[in-house]
Amino acid sequence: MRLSLEPCTLSLRQPFAIAHGVSLSRENVLVHLDAGTGEAAAVPYLGERREAIVEYLERVDLGAVNDPCALDDVLAGLPAGSAAARAAIDIALHDVFAQQLGQPLYRILGLNPESIPPTSLTIPIGAPEQMAAQARDAGMPILKIKLGTDQDEARLDAIANATRATLRADANAGWTRDQALALLPALAERGVELIEQPLAAGDLEGLRALSRLPARPAIFADEGIRGTNDIVRHAGLVDGVVVKLAKSGGIRAALRDIAVARALGLEVLLSCMIESSVAVTAAAHIAPLCQKVDLDGPLLIDGDPYAGVTYHGATLRLPASPGLGIRRR
Amino acid sequence: MRLSLEPCTLSLRQPFAIAHGVSLSRENVLVHLDAGTGEAAAVPYLGERREAIVEYLERVDLGAVNDPCALDDVLAGLPAGSAAARAAIDIALHDVFAQQLGQPLYRILGLNPESIPPTSLTIPIGAPEQMAAQARDAGMPILKIKLGTDQDEARLDAIANATRATLRADANAGWTRDQALALLPALAERGVELIEQPLAAGDLEGLRALSRLPARPAIFADEGIRGTNDIVRHAGLVDGVVVKLAKSGGIRAALRDIAVARALGLEVLLSCMIESSVAVTAAAHIAPLCQKVDLDGPLLIDGDPYAGVTYHGATLRLPASPGLGIRRR
Repeated sequence: MRLSLEPCTLSLRQPFAIAHGVSLSRENVLVHLDAGTGEAAAVPYLGERREAIVEYLERVDLGAVNDPCALDDVLAGLPAGSAAARAAIDIALHDVFAQQLGQPLYRILGLNPESIPPTSLTIPIGAPEQMAAQARDAGMPILKIKLGTDQDEARLDAIANATRATLRADANAGWTRDQALALLPALAERGVELIEQPLAAGDLEGLRALSRLPARPAIFADEGIRGTNDIVRHAGLVDGVVVKLAKSGGIRAALRDIAVARALGLEVLLSCMIESSVAVTAAAHIAPLCQKVDLDGPLLIDGDPYAGVTYHGATLRLPASPGLGIRRR
Repeated sequence: MRLSLEPCTLSLRQPFAIAHGVSLSRENVLVHLDAGTGEAAAVPYLGERREAIVEYLERVDLGAVNDPCALDDVLAGLPAGSAAARAAIDIALHDVFAQQLGQPLYRILGLNPESIPPTSLTIPIGAPEQMAAQARDAGMPILKIKLGTDQDEARLDAIANATRATLRADANAGWTRDQALALLPALAERGVELIEQPLAAGDLEGLRALSRLPARPAIFADEGIRGTNDIVRHAGLVDGVVVKLAKSGGIRAALRDIAVARALGLEVLLSCMIESSVAVTAAAHIAPLCQKVDLDGPLLIDGDPYAGVTYHGATLRLPASPGLGIRRR
């Protein structure tokens, strides 16, 4: 199988401010593997830089692989390194695999695409009145509010007054323990249903303290979950985990991570990075296995290079064509 | 899809004595689902009786199912109850599913059939000299010795002197803590590589004590593992778990159980009940995911109703035809 790379810069429709910093664009990499396509998300705060992703991918030689059904062997044979780059290869390989079997991937995985939970839409950090206006105008039933800096309570109040949407919040590791201990009850009081990554990645003792708060939203770990071992370490400390193809290392690894999380009594929120319809459509194929979904990447960018999953309000619809079902725009 | 049942009595080639009792035959049930076939193993000591399996299966109506790719919906819609009966439906459904996709199941699962570890052959409980003769004459590189009654050390000595095969032992929950504490070092001394279920199912404290023995074989839980929750409860107390389709509830559930076990640092021994080539071939399709294999059912019975996986010494070879690849004899 022949592997080639295509740098793909995604422009954000608005400056994407989160606790880790502001992005105007993201420097992703598309992977072409025979007729299959994958995507590696460059995420600076996870240490995933385009140069390193490209370097990883240029070292991979799949010339000796002639059977796209050999998923296990091909993926087990990849060198250690960038999870985003491994995800790109895994996604492209699943695309070829399902194309060869002549079916949309979800069918080969035995899943019902009508069981995908509705997605949230992300509102990046901004002035309280600006976030409130966005929340009001979004027309979406579930909103994910980015928090994790100062003025979080003012933002929350403005948004909660502006919309009746279900609210989720994401602190992106931006709070200290004391801040989180004060803010989680405030979130609960305003009906926020879940908070992602309130504390620094790996602060398990802090999560234990938060879990004991009498009034709090459900707590989901995201930046703290970089691999399956992290899911195991978080069991009992959080209500759920955020699984992303770019963190797990692809579809096959994410399927395992979802199985592990559910066995450990954790809910799964399937999410994406700033990614195009390539990676987000791939994620949508396994979304029926998850309780919650945040797959809004294509809604946040201009110039999506591919068409794939479509949005009908918060409902995701997968293409019925073989493979991932994506096509070049 | 149309479901029909066929009682299938399997005659054992020799009286099959284990710590739970002696069997001359087993009263399994074959399931036909359109062109697919599955098998439910009646295992008295697990409370799986043919009458209850038949009763369960007669309550299941899949008449409204018209897409064998809807694995998740069909399996999630099954009523609670007999894991063996659910496994039979799951196996038959995977057979139809893979037939419809025109591929052997292992290919749709992305697995390499040449990666199946060699199987052990079981030697049931008998007089020491009788077991030793069987071990000597078996011509197999890995033997699984059934223990769990009196005279276990004499049996072990006789067998260890009679063969250079790798030895595994299975006490089938037959020992007290004191017996196990005395026997595990004796097993280790004679080079036995693993012991299955030394203590009663659920005796986690006992397993903790055994795990601390300075010289012992690897400890695998079998009867103690009836569902995914049990795998989680045994993590850290044993070296591995025994996964069987008839306990997990089929192929799809076993795939999840294998993922969970591996994430928790447990080895997986994929095993079978007294089952024909229907259920054992189904298990062989997922065996490449496991570190150890004990899939000798067809070698222990006469009058196997199907042909499927074949044995070349301890090497299993899967048929290359679509679905499970089994055919009526």
